[in-house]
Amino acid sequence: MNYNLSQIPERFEKPRQKGLTMVMDKGLSLRQVEDFIEVAGSYTDLVKLGWATSYVTNNLKEKLAIYKSAGIPVYFGGTLFEAFYIRGEVDEYRRVLDQYGMEYAEISDGSVEMNSDVKCEYIRQLSQQVTVLSEVGSKDEAKIIPPYKWIKLMRMELEAGAWKVIGEAREGGNVGLFRSSGEVRQGLVEEILTEIPEESIIWEAPQKSQQVWFVKLVGANVNVGNIAPNEVISLETIRLGLRGDTFDHFLTK
Amino acid sequence: MNYNLSQIPERFEKPRQKGLTMVMDKGLSLRQVEDFIEVAGSYTDLVKLGWATSYVTNNLKEKLAIYKSAGIPVYFGGTLFEAFYIRGEVDEYRRVLDQYGMEYAEISDGSVEMNSDVKCEYIRQLSQQVTVLSEVGSKDEAKIIPPYKWIKLMRMELEAGAWKVIGEAREGGNVGLFRSSGEVRQGLVEEILTEIPEESIIWEAPQKSQQVWFVKLVGANVNVGNIAPNEVISLETIRLGLRGDTFDHFLTK
Amino acid sequence: MNYNLSQIPERFEKPRQKGLTMVMDKGLSLRQVEDFIEVAGSYTDLVKLGWATSYVTNNLKEKLAIYKSAGIPVYFGGTLFEAFYIRGEVDEYRRVLDQYGMEYAEISDGSVEMNSDVKCEYIRQLSQQVTVLSEVGSKDEAKIIPPYKWIKLMRMELEAGAWKVIGEAREGGNVGLFRSSGEVRQGLVEEILTEIPEESIIWEAPQKSQQVWFVKLVGANVNVGNIAPNEVISLETIRLGLRGDTFDHFLTK
Repeated sequence: MNYNLSQIPERFEKPRQKGLTMVMDKGLSLRQVEDFIEVAGSYTDLVKLGWATSYVTNNLKEKLAIYKSAGIPVYFGGTLFEAFYIRGEVDEYRRVLDQYGMEYAEISDGSVEMNSDVKCEYIRQLSQQVTVLSEVGSKDEAKIIPPYKWIKLMRMELEAGAWKVIGEAREGGNVGLFRSSGEVRQGLVEEILTEIPEESIIWEAPQKSQQVWFVKLVGANVNVGNIAPNEVISLETIRLGLRGDTFDHFLTK
Repeated sequence: MNYNLSQIPERFEKPRQKGLTMVMDKGLSLRQVEDFIEVAGSYTDLVKLGWATSYVTNNLKEKLAIYKSAGIPVYFGGTLFEAFYIRGEVDEYRRVLDQYGMEYAEISDGSVEMNSDVKCEYIRQLSQQVTVLSEVGSKDEAKIIPPYKWIKLMRMELEAGAWKVIGEAREGGNVGLFRSSGEVRQGLVEEILTEIPEESIIWEAPQKSQQVWFVKLVGANVNVGNIAPNEVISLETIRLGLRGDTFDHFLTK
Repeated sequence: MNYNLSQIPERFEKPRQKGLTMVMDKGLSLRQVEDFIEVAGSYTDLVKLGWATSYVTNNLKEKLAIYKSAGIPVYFGGTLFEAFYIRGEVDEYRRVLDQYGMEYAEISDGSVEMNSDVKCEYIRQLSQQVTVLSEVGSKDEAKIIPPYKWIKLMRMELEAGAWKVIGEAREGGNVGLFRSSGEVRQGLVEEILTEIPEESIIWEAPQKSQQVWFVKLVGANVNVGNIAPNEVISLETIRLGLRGDTFDHFLTK
């Protein structure tokens, strides 16, 4: 840190299992990736190339190389897996992962209907090849999954070999864990946390008020995701009690 | 594309007449222009220097040169034409176009009262000098133009020599084609499309939900505009059915 | 300017006392700072490193050097002062200001309870060391300060040695001077302006509609702050009557 302040919550060093920040890159240029790493690389644990943006970005190989040399794992958004799945081309997806030297992959069913046994079988298969993150929750705001089912799915997917389960929110933070207004489904999150270890979950929380809510509930070292590259510094100050919203949360009176 | 996926809608090659993406640059630096071109240049057909930002940007000549060398046409936002018009200085505007070597210009009346015959006369004159885009719709959210009049104006302006007509939405997407909430005036758009060929219209659609709506209505190769530079990749995935919102729109069942 | 237009409001040259634009840097990279200065340096009078972001940014010394060489004063957000204050470490804060060669500082009480005499005493002390900006208004949207008290506090803080007083709005523009919807508390602002000279106040106004409102009320040379780096060009066009919102505001009929 640049100077000393007392009573700052402790953060773990990378690579960490708790307090992860997962950032969404939805089409940065190579220089923008370098800039992001300069500013926030030490606070970033994972980068997701949002949904299927990797299909159309012009600089994919070079971008992956920059993240790799900075020691930041990258994975393709789950929608890409679903795009191959719905076409019956999952084997081709596995070849793409190899072709680009991917070490992580996300398996989700946010835009498709997929039986949970089928999903778990993919988690099992893929986790032979890469570290798997699996995502629970629909991108369809009309599709409400009750808490007991979130818990059941998360548990099944972790048992099938997922390294972490991700709670869905999209780039906007207005589905899945959240109401269309962006408000947290508080009861859902609290019930999940009674059954699934917090370190096994990454909560997608792109809006500041959502990040604040999770830091207040779980602590400085909550795992959050879908953070915009230029919001990682803000998130870090929220974690440390150095933004107005969490200003006195970590202080002993 | 970076890998193979079946059942992806076909896009045309540049220079194309259909499936145009018009991007708004409201003050990028030279390096940011280069970054944008690296990421999204092949998906970008036109760049507008938003409203009269070209008056105050410090790097105008150099910026125009970068776009030119990338083969991307640039034009000044229509508000600049209106600023010269309301001062009675349109001749000076024509000299400015020459001075900067502009090959395109926008003629609009979003902030001024202008008789449609007068507007068409300017379209006729300017189209001797440059390729003209003309814009229909007011920037004043209280000013509702009925559909038959949109159609009449668009037809007149195309006949006067406009290469494309643009449907107004501003940077925010909350006037003209849209309600102040951003919701599409669906009946308006559908009625326009019964009379004006889709390839003659560029729909300003800065919000993601608006882009999704137009892609679903018109198809992958709809012309849309006022896209933020860092949203072009997202738009391209929406066109191709590779984002959640249009995920199964192009799939044969 | 890049070309001539008549009837453009006059702006003052830097360093100016009126018509200030204060920009919030919440974690730019070094190249992004250079890009921002290229585009908008001549329109930017002050840069604030938002709240306590300076604690966690990896490039602080180099960033300060770039701003310095461009002649743009920089200060740490008031929340940083408050973070030291609430820990009883204000002396350490003064050492940090020296260590980084800061010539400006902000004193605020947006997140803490602080007696106004205590605040004025800090303004007095700090203004021996640096140029002080003091901020009035709470970051808590439930805490409404009546107009007479805003005026009393602003007057006391200017008398205690503050160079300018800042009206609070946060990054979002939804507290202090504004309702949670972003709407201006018009009566509050107008009453303040009957008692405090406009050139002594910097109004935080991050939203475009807020900037438009202040330019229409006070004029092209109003002091505004918390402007995002990529919105400075837009603000400048609003000041000059070259965006739709203020398009005919400065024209003689």
